Amino acid sequence: MKDTGIGSEKIIRRKRDGELEYQPDDLTIEEPLEIRIGRKTLATTMRTPGHDEELAAGFLVSEAIVRERKEIATISATGVKLKLDSAQRFGTISSSCGICGKNSIAAIRQNFPPIASSPEVRIATETLTSLPDLLRERQGDFVRTGGIHAAGIFDLTGKPKIVREDIGRHNAVDKAIGRAFLDGLLPLDRHILLVSGRASFEIVQKGLSAGIPIVASVSAPSTLAMNFARESNQTLIGFLRPPSFNLYSHVERVILEKY
Amino acid sequence: MKDTGIGSEKIIRRKRDGELEYQPDDLTIEEPLEIRIGRKTLATTMRTPGHDEELAAGFLVSEAIVRERKEIATISATGVKLKLDSAQRFGTISSSCGICGKNSIAAIRQNFPPIASSPEVRIATETLTSLPDLLRERQGDFVRTGGIHAAGIFDLTGKPKIVREDIGRHNAVDKAIGRAFLDGLLPLDRHILLVSGRASFEIVQKGLSAGIPIVASVSAPSTLAMNFARESNQTLIGFLRPPSFNLYSHVERVILEKY
Repeated sequence: MKDTGIGSEKIIRRKRDGELEYQPDDLTIEEPLEIRIGRKTLATTMRTPGHDEELAAGFLVSEAIVRERKEIATISATGVKLKLDSAQRFGTISSSCGICGKNSIAAIRQNFPPIASSPEVRIATETLTSLPDLLRERQGDFVRTGGIHAAGIFDLTGKPKIVREDIGRHNAVDKAIGRAFLDGLLPLDRHILLVSGRASFEIVQKGLSAGIPIVASVSAPSTLAMNFARESNQTLIGFLRPPSFNLYSHVERVILEKY
Repeated sequence: MKDTGIGSEKIIRRKRDGELEYQPDDLTIEEPLEIRIGRKTLATTMRTPGHDEELAAGFLVSEAIVRERKEIATISATGVKLKLDSAQRFGTISSSCGICGKNSIAAIRQNFPPIASSPEVRIATETLTSLPDLLRERQGDFVRTGGIHAAGIFDLTGKPKIVREDIGRHNAVDKAIGRAFLDGLLPLDRHILLVSGRASFEIVQKGLSAGIPIVASVSAPSTLAMNFARESNQTLIGFLRPPSFNLYSHVERVILEKY
């Protein structure tokens, strides 16, 4: 496992004035990671190296293979070993392939019931609009490469708990949720997940797998992300570009002074 | 199959002045598509509906399952039927899962030899820097949703041949390449592929599968995208934001007046 997600390479840059420079450039590292359970490959993902155990753990959570820390016997660079019950559960679902195999959204809904409503789980507009800057400040690699996504888990007062970066938005979310899972913090039922970029179905579903009631993204959500959030009782926020944002579902969790 | 990749929904928007509006909003449609060969599911991808046959065809090309139009007996919403030779080839590789299963980059390199060098395959700086505007002009859905990627295939004079949009960058590339494949235009050895967003390994590899010598992206490439392009004799251009751009590999295909 590497300590940095950045590689430096000499490239040719054409500048605004048409002049050419041969200069070093920082690129986001992308390499394949096989996620194995025992000897069986569950999925191979193209990810930025680092926090690989977290990535594997978060992936297993989002695939409903594990629900509690104690279900994992060992997790390491050579694979994940599950305890017996989880191994049996894995046996029943391993025919579907992890990252690509969202074969049946109905099956996902069955694995992850909607978030329970809780009137005190609310976030102030001021807090919500403070999050993108907090995420960016903690995103060291983006500034250098411009090519890496981030996922942050914040509490309802806006305090950052975990921030992870990866070339894939879904991997960044897996790493953040995986860290929380390994620390025994799930469900994150009083937290908000913020992702750079867009909110696809997969991001909202991963949030649900960790029990996260509020999912926000800096860019656009998809129709399926919105419909899934509506059904799973999750608040979905898009285009979070302070002072503006859009609310796509369960607006009751955002304290809107003027509403 | 639908004619549009956009769904309209009522959402709450917080405006810059803090006022709230309940208004219709255009969202990119995201829905699962199963790509089947006969009765076997090869992959399930989350895509924007429309041009599904192209998506399936492009995917099969990039997975080295088909190389020529005549290998496909039928292609439809209910699946792809292959002719005998290709079906046998599919049988030998079907254990690897499509979208997630870039199990072995070495295996990919074996399936797709490097692009042959051809001194006349070059693009002028002026032509290259004209492409982002041409792509954007043809990208109707992005303007409305802000949440959709595009892939464009251009000839070396900058003439747009095929432009496709999708919520997933890799799907947009599959659709564009799939269209070219169905029209019998492969290899696209005198063309350039331009994608919105970043250039991951997958994008460069899909370009290679269609024989495309020049791949450009509006944002950052990854280390693996660059290394793969260098090995496969492809020119990789990143941060194509006229008048600037970066050259990561095989710069000889870009005519640099001042170099």
